[in-house]
Amino acid sequence: MTTLHIDWQPDKTSSVPIYQQITNYFQHAIASGDWPMGAKLPSQRKLAPQFGVNRSTLITALDELIAVGLITSNPGSGMAVSGNHWSSLLAEHVNWSQYVKAGQFKPNSHAIQKINQFETDDVIRLSTGEPAPEQFPRVLFQKAFDHLGQHLTSLNYTEPAGILALREQIARHLQKVGIQTQPENILITSGSLQALQLVSLSLFPKDATIYTEAPTYVKSLQVFQSANTHLAGVPMDNQGMAYWQMTPPTNGSQAIMYTIPTFNNPTGIVMSQARRQQILQYAQEHQMPILEDAAYQDVWFDQQPPQPLKALDETGNVIYFGSISKSLAPGLRIGWTVATKPVIDRLTDVRMQTDYGASSLSQLVLAEILANPEYDTYQANFRAVLAQKATAAQAILHHYWDDGIATFDAPTGGFYLWVRLADRINIKKLFDLATAQNVLFNPGNIYDFKPNQYIRLSFSFESTERFERGIQILTKLIEENFPK
Amino acid sequence: MTTLHIDWQPDKTSSVPIYQQITNYFQHAIASGDWPMGAKLPSQRKLAPQFGVNRSTLITALDELIAVGLITSNPGSGMAVSGNHWSSLLAEHVNWSQYVKAGQFKPNSHAIQKINQFETDDVIRLSTGEPAPEQFPRVLFQKAFDHLGQHLTSLNYTEPAGILALREQIARHLQKVGIQTQPENILITSGSLQALQLVSLSLFPKDATIYTEAPTYVKSLQVFQSANTHLAGVPMDNQGMAYWQMTPPTNGSQAIMYTIPTFNNPTGIVMSQARRQQILQYAQEHQMPILEDAAYQDVWFDQQPPQPLKALDETGNVIYFGSISKSLAPGLRIGWTVATKPVIDRLTDVRMQTDYGASSLSQLVLAEILANPEYDTYQANFRAVLAQKATAAQAILHHYWDDGIATFDAPTGGFYLWVRLADRINIKKLFDLATAQNVLFNPGNIYDFKPNQYIRLSFSFESTERFERGIQILTKLIEENFPK
Repeated sequence: MTTLHIDWQPDKTSSVPIYQQITNYFQHAIASGDWPMGAKLPSQRKLAPQFGVNRSTLITALDELIAVGLITSNPGSGMAVSGNHWSSLLAEHVNWSQYVKAGQFKPNSHAIQKINQFETDDVIRLSTGEPAPEQFPRVLFQKAFDHLGQHLTSLNYTEPAGILALREQIARHLQKVGIQTQPENILITSGSLQALQLVSLSLFPKDATIYTEAPTYVKSLQVFQSANTHLAGVPMDNQGMAYWQMTPPTNGSQAIMYTIPTFNNPTGIVMSQARRQQILQYAQEHQMPILEDAAYQDVWFDQQPPQPLKALDETGNVIYFGSISKSLAPGLRIGWTVATKPVIDRLTDVRMQTDYGASSLSQLVLAEILANPEYDTYQANFRAVLAQKATAAQAILHHYWDDGIATFDAPTGGFYLWVRLADRINIKKLFDLATAQNVLFNPGNIYDFKPNQYIRLSFSFESTERFERGIQILTKLIEENFPK
Repeated sequence: MTTLHIDWQPDKTSSVPIYQQITNYFQHAIASGDWPMGAKLPSQRKLAPQFGVNRSTLITALDELIAVGLITSNPGSGMAVSGNHWSSLLAEHVNWSQYVKAGQFKPNSHAIQKINQFETDDVIRLSTGEPAPEQFPRVLFQKAFDHLGQHLTSLNYTEPAGILALREQIARHLQKVGIQTQPENILITSGSLQALQLVSLSLFPKDATIYTEAPTYVKSLQVFQSANTHLAGVPMDNQGMAYWQMTPPTNGSQAIMYTIPTFNNPTGIVMSQARRQQILQYAQEHQMPILEDAAYQDVWFDQQPPQPLKALDETGNVIYFGSISKSLAPGLRIGWTVATKPVIDRLTDVRMQTDYGASSLSQLVLAEILANPEYDTYQANFRAVLAQKATAAQAILHHYWDDGIATFDAPTGGFYLWVRLADRINIKKLFDLATAQNVLFNPGNIYDFKPNQYIRLSFSFESTERFERGIQILTKLIEENFPK
């Protein structure tokens, strides 16, 4: 295989960065077929002077080309053009990302990709929205497994909307929060994230505007943004979304509201009873459908929160999303959507074309567990432990951070503390320093529509001891890098 | 609530059908807000003369409006404007379906919606691609459940690409068919349908052309069609896809190949060893990435089929999709994608935004089962029973249909007989007559790019006795309705 002859140099007067010009040149040469698969590249030592660039600029470009798979690098044989067309497609895709239209999924934010990758290693995870392993009700699961082991006669596809026995249990479970519904108004999904994905694929008209609390969990996802819609943030006060600050679109595009009224993620704010009524009224007047995300509904500390919007909804205008991920086990990947029949039918139809249903095994096990009277005992205990951990976490923060590092409000449920750091602290830098020391937290920016000075700390997953160790490490980093 | 006053009549000279004019009028009146939520409609008795149309035309229009949820009908109080904005959104969506762009999912075909709905009732299901409940290895599952019940300490989110222990087992399993791969080149998905969905969301450039066997399973899905791509059918001979009949796009759009080389669904054709080599060569020359769907890889009768394309792929050009649905249990909803690292990373990133991973429970149970040495014994037995059922099903068809009703080729693996019915038989009518008698089969049209005279019969799910009863019912329907 001959080595490629290259007579090209970047344009140093251009506004395009040099390394970017180099990657563009390589991509074009490979995509056009000018450089055949397997062709060898000159060494870095030769390439840098040939391009008239310094070595580090060249390496930046080559690293990117290797990362997207356009070229390969072997210690023995040097660099070569990759023989993999998917890689060039991918490179093309990455290159085209600014033009990519709805349905072509955007990549996750860098911070979230980093957190996703880290969350499986041995780190102090103040980032994750998961229940603590210590709270896992092994005996409840063991009983369900035993029953299934004896009675399971097949494990085939389920009813399109999910196993009836589970939808019946969900309907019964929802009565406790005031929602009167029937199994035919319920769709079982693979977590409530899939439900959001289905709604955006199935119901959102092009160019719809989705109004949502600022900050909000969905801002950290690409699910709505990838569906040709616009997310618009609405401020909150301590009663919840300040809906009167919405500016419904005047260009005739459809407006839809997405809200986490109970233990808003990340702020923990609970929408008051009065605000719930007002928002339902407002949405009705403005013909605005509502998506109600109730993922944290069941994880209150001392007092049950106000009823969901869905319980007060007399028009069928609210689509309600519930989940077992926060109150029992995210690994089951089970959520439920409650809506009027035509909406459920449409979502179910798209769902059958997306993944042909949620795990039957997860559905059967969850139906068994929800039917077990001991589930209520488990829930009460789960909430009590969570409330204790929340109290302990707040005491730790007050101890280490009250003196000019941070402020926060006390939550009444959910998994998180939403913590405002002092202005002198550069959160991006703190994030990088902390991950290098195996402490993860979520920067507040990923949830917001504008830069902010917050971080989200989860007290649910780690033990109180490990939470404190994490805060000690963060405190040391802050004192060393951002002194008063 | 007052009753609406309506002074409008359809235009009888228009080319738009009368009932359609009525639904359009209602939709406009409701969407514009002219008709408020909850407003009562005049009775059908009054409306028909007011519109100057006959009662049945009016009912056709009203049924459609009720079906999409724009109006409600109560026996006591008559018809009213629905108070549900999602319904009007949905109606709008259905109305706009011809304009809908990529990412906005198309509805399933009518036949498939009907089959999906039916497949859970007590019918003879010659339609379904599921293993028989009788072949369910309850003891293998029971052992896995027992082990988990004792050792499971939590059920949280998994590694983004899927549980490592499962990916290790999959890598080991794939060695048996000649694929040498590593856990980091494997992504666990919720069945291989989700993998197709992820690939289309993540990797397909806009306006790409997907070349595929005609007929093919994916033609029955909207997954690729909904992603702004064009499916193009390529004929098959008895060696597999006649790739030389492809006409690569001349407009510069990307070309991608999707193939089911082993036990093609629906035809059962196995691509020969020589054709596999030729297709890899062709794709390499034309810079065409390949999607290899190997769902039926493990369900051969007497002789192991040729190695997958992926086993012969030296360039990383092939993305391979495997599944446990056909050889063990579709209800686990577990599939796997094998590809080069940049492709796996991109798919994993989108996957984390789609449903945050497959059921951990399904993954753990499957990892246990694949690690159990008894799994190989189960597989051998599963194949032997399936081969017996295939033989029996063919004998039944020969007995009832050889005399001028149908012809078919003998399959060497998979779940289906691809049966050509005599020209006099109207398959659409036969489908409707059969479903009315609780016998389901899949019309061949849903898999093809042009009308054909085939049906797909599954011998895997039903017992041989019930298969024969189903064929007896079909025979009677054919003799009564389509006599020679």
